[in-house]
Amino acid sequence: MSLSNVIKYLDKNEAKHLELLFDIIRQKSISATGEGVEECADKIVKMMNGLGIRAKKFKTEGLPVVYGEITSNPDALTVLIYGHYDVQPPDPLDQWLSDPFEPTIRDGKIYARGSGDDKGQFMAHILAAAALKKDGWPDINVKFLLDGEEESSSVSLPKFISDNREMLKADVAISSDGPKHPSGRPVVFFGVRGLLYVQITLEGAKHDLHSGNNGNVAPTPAWDIVRLLNEIFPNNGQCQIPHFYDDVLDATEYEKDLIKNMPFEKEGYLETMNLNDTDMDNEEFWHKLMFEPTVNICGLGSGYQGKGSKTIIPNQAMVKMDFRLVPEQDPNKIFDNLVKYIKNQYPNAKIEKFGVTVPTRTSAELNISKAVVEAVRLGSKQEPVVQPRLGGSTPDYLITKHLKLPSIWVPFANADENNHSPNENINVDDFYDGIKISATIIHKLAQQSKEKLLEDLV
Amino acid sequence: MSLSNVIKYLDKNEAKHLELLFDIIRQKSISATGEGVEECADKIVKMMNGLGIRAKKFKTEGLPVVYGEITSNPDALTVLIYGHYDVQPPDPLDQWLSDPFEPTIRDGKIYARGSGDDKGQFMAHILAAAALKKDGWPDINVKFLLDGEEESSSVSLPKFISDNREMLKADVAISSDGPKHPSGRPVVFFGVRGLLYVQITLEGAKHDLHSGNNGNVAPTPAWDIVRLLNEIFPNNGQCQIPHFYDDVLDATEYEKDLIKNMPFEKEGYLETMNLNDTDMDNEEFWHKLMFEPTVNICGLGSGYQGKGSKTIIPNQAMVKMDFRLVPEQDPNKIFDNLVKYIKNQYPNAKIEKFGVTVPTRTSAELNISKAVVEAVRLGSKQEPVVQPRLGGSTPDYLITKHLKLPSIWVPFANADENNHSPNENINVDDFYDGIKISATIIHKLAQQSKEKLLEDLV
Repeated sequence: MSLSNVIKYLDKNEAKHLELLFDIIRQKSISATGEGVEECADKIVKMMNGLGIRAKKFKTEGLPVVYGEITSNPDALTVLIYGHYDVQPPDPLDQWLSDPFEPTIRDGKIYARGSGDDKGQFMAHILAAAALKKDGWPDINVKFLLDGEEESSSVSLPKFISDNREMLKADVAISSDGPKHPSGRPVVFFGVRGLLYVQITLEGAKHDLHSGNNGNVAPTPAWDIVRLLNEIFPNNGQCQIPHFYDDVLDATEYEKDLIKNMPFEKEGYLETMNLNDTDMDNEEFWHKLMFEPTVNICGLGSGYQGKGSKTIIPNQAMVKMDFRLVPEQDPNKIFDNLVKYIKNQYPNAKIEKFGVTVPTRTSAELNISKAVVEAVRLGSKQEPVVQPRLGGSTPDYLITKHLKLPSIWVPFANADENNHSPNENINVDDFYDGIKISATIIHKLAQQSKEKLLEDLV
Repeated sequence: MSLSNVIKYLDKNEAKHLELLFDIIRQKSISATGEGVEECADKIVKMMNGLGIRAKKFKTEGLPVVYGEITSNPDALTVLIYGHYDVQPPDPLDQWLSDPFEPTIRDGKIYARGSGDDKGQFMAHILAAAALKKDGWPDINVKFLLDGEEESSSVSLPKFISDNREMLKADVAISSDGPKHPSGRPVVFFGVRGLLYVQITLEGAKHDLHSGNNGNVAPTPAWDIVRLLNEIFPNNGQCQIPHFYDDVLDATEYEKDLIKNMPFEKEGYLETMNLNDTDMDNEEFWHKLMFEPTVNICGLGSGYQGKGSKTIIPNQAMVKMDFRLVPEQDPNKIFDNLVKYIKNQYPNAKIEKFGVTVPTRTSAELNISKAVVEAVRLGSKQEPVVQPRLGGSTPDYLITKHLKLPSIWVPFANADENNHSPNENINVDDFYDGIKISATIIHKLAQQSKEKLLEDLV
C-alpha cells in the first residue's frame, strides 16, 4: 500500500466523507441533557462497522462510550485515538444563522453544533483509518475511544478505563480537539495546565451597616478579602500558599527551544490585551503561559456596585479564583493547603472548591512525539507550531493518568471554530486536511520500528 | 413670665399643637422633585405669622428658604434655629402601612413622611417660641432658618447665607434633626465627621479574557485594585495617602471625659456587628467612631459574581470608597492627594468624586454648650447623652463654616424614627417633649448673662 494512493482516494471521496460527517452531526448528542446521545453512539457504531472498523457501544455508569479498533498483530505499535461524540447544548438558539443540527456550508465552513468540537475531528481519524484499510492495512493497531460525556466532565470515563484496561492497552494516544494556530498552521501540543477553581467568602456584621455610624468599629470583610488576597499573592508575584511551588517542573532545554520558535505576533493577540508595548520576548511570554502557574481573580464582589454612591460597610465579600497549575502540582493538595492557610486567619471563612483538573505533560522530545510532529508536517505540507503545553486546561489527565499513555494532541479545526458558542463551525478544507494528516500519521508510524519509537519511554 | 406657666400651657394645648403639625405634614414638600415645596413654605410662613413669629418666604437660586424671627433687643443673645421643611420622596410606597402624607397615629407614633425628619422637630421649636411669646417674650432673639433643600444637599443655602449675613447674624445655632439615644435619653452633639466618596476604576485588556489561554501575561485590573487598596490602607491601619492625617485634631481632655460617660451596651448595637466579644472599651470605641477618620470600602467589583465558576481574567475592576473625615481634614485636599497618589502608579485610572462633606466641630466645653446641655437636662428631666461628635455626616458645615456659628444639635425624634425609609414616624410624646425642651432652652439661655455665655467664644 502507498500513502499517495490513499491521498488520491481521499481526494476522490470528499463528497462521500462530508455526507458521512453530516449524518453524525445531524444526530443530536447533548450530554448535558442526554438528548440523542444513545442514538448517536448507535449511529457511529454502525458507520464504523460499515467502514471496516470493529466497533461497539459500551455501557458506563453514565452515557455510553464507543470503542472501535483495526488491528494488525499484537506486537505492532498500538495507537489509541481519543475523541468525543457528545456536544454542548446549542443555546442561545436565536444567535445561530442556521439550524445547529442541520449542517450548512457557507463561505467554506460547515456550520453546526459539534462540527468542530469534536465530530469533525474524530471523524477525520475514522475516515483516515477506513481509507488506509481499503488500500491494505499497515502493520499497526489503531483503537478508538469515543467519549460520550466530555462536555460533562467525563465523569464515567475513569471507571470505564479501569474496568477495560486490557482492551484499551496502547503505546501512545493521539487526540484531536480544539483549534489550529490562527495563521492556519497545524499545532501539536503535549500537555495542559491544570486547574483549581475556588470561591472564598468572608462575612462581617449581620447585615450591611451605615458607614458613618459604624465606620472604624464594625467588621470589614471587604478589607479582609483585600488583605487576604494580597497575602496569598503579594506584589512580588510569589504565591504564599505553603508548598505551592514545591512540585513545579521547569521547562526542559528542549521545551525552551520549542517556545523560542513559537509565533509571537504583536498584532491581534497582544493588541487585545493592550500589551502592544510589552517588553516580554516570546520566550518569556510562552514560558509564563505554559510553564508557570497562575493565581487569578475571576470575580470579586462586595457591597454596592450600582450607579452613584451608597454609604455602607458591606457585611460580606467574595472572591472567585482560578489557579492554572503546571506539572506536577496537585490541585487537591494545593486546595488543602489554601484552606489551612486561610482558616488560620479567618476560621469562619467559607471556602468552596468548584473545579479541579490535573495538569499533564508528555515529553515533546520522545521519539514518538517527534515522529508525530514529522508526520503532521508531511501530511499538512506546513510547518507545525510545536507547543509544549496548552495554557488552558483540558481533561488530558484521563489519558496520561488513567490510561497512563503519552498523549499527543493534533487539533484539526480552524482557530475561529466557535466551539461552545453559536455558529460553531469547521472549515471544509480543515476537515479534509484532517483526514489526510491522520492517514499520514498512522501510515508513517506503521513504517517505523516500534522498538525505536518507544525506546525512550519509561 | 415663668417657665412653669409655659409648661402648663403646653400640656393644655397638646391637641392643638398636634393638629398644627399634621397640617404641615399633609402638605408634601419633596425637594428631589420639587413637589409641593413652594406650597409648604407658604403654609409655614402663614402659620408662623399666625403664632406671632414674623416670617417670610425667601427666593433662592433653588427652592425657597423660610425665615422667621422673634426679637427682643439687638443686644440680647441671638439664637438661630436651623431646620428643614423639605422631605425625602416616600418610595417605596407599597411598604407604607398608611398614606405617607396623611399622618396616622398607631401605638403612640405619628406615621408620615417628614414626621421625624424634620417637620416634627422644627415645629417643636416654633411651637415653643410661640408659647413663650404668649406668656411674655424673654430677653432673647430667636431666628428660624428653614431650609427647603436639605434632602437635596442644600445646594442653594451657601449663597443665600452669604447674601443675607446681616439678617442671619446670631451668636449660636441650635438644630434638631436625627434621633435620640436608643434608650430614650436625649442626645446633645457638637459636630459631625465629614465625607469624601470616590469611585476608582482600573482597566486591563479590551474585554474579559480566557484565564487559561492568557493567564500570567494579560493585564489583571482585579489584582491591581487589590494591590492599590492594600497600599492605600495596609494592614497597619494607617492610610498612606500623603498628608492624610496632617490636619486631624485629637479629642480634648474634656471630650475624652465625655466619651468615657457615653453608654456602651454590648446588646443590640454590638451584637448586630458580631462584636459581642470585642475587647474595645467604650473610650476606644467612641474615639474610633468620632475622632478617627475611616477608610472604607462601600463596594468592590470585578469579573464574574454569579453562581458557580467562569474562568476569566476580568478586564475591569472598580471600588467605591468613603472616607469619614474629622476636623480639620479637608475632603477636597484629600481627594487631590489621592488622585496624585493613584495616578503615579496607574496613570489611566478613572477616579470620580461622588460626594464631599466638610467635618465640623463645636466645643462641648463652651459656656453656651454647657448651658444648652443643662437646659436639655432640665427640660427633659433626663440625663442627656452628651456626644462630642456624630460618626455620620450631616451638612453641619453650613452652620459652622457658612454661618460661622457654634452649632449645637439637640435631636427630638425617637431612635426608630425610620427617617428616609417607609413608615417614618415620631413618637407623639417625643414631639411634645421636644416643645418643652426647646422652651426650656430658650428660657434658660435668656435668663443668663450674654457676656458670660459667650466669653469663651473666639
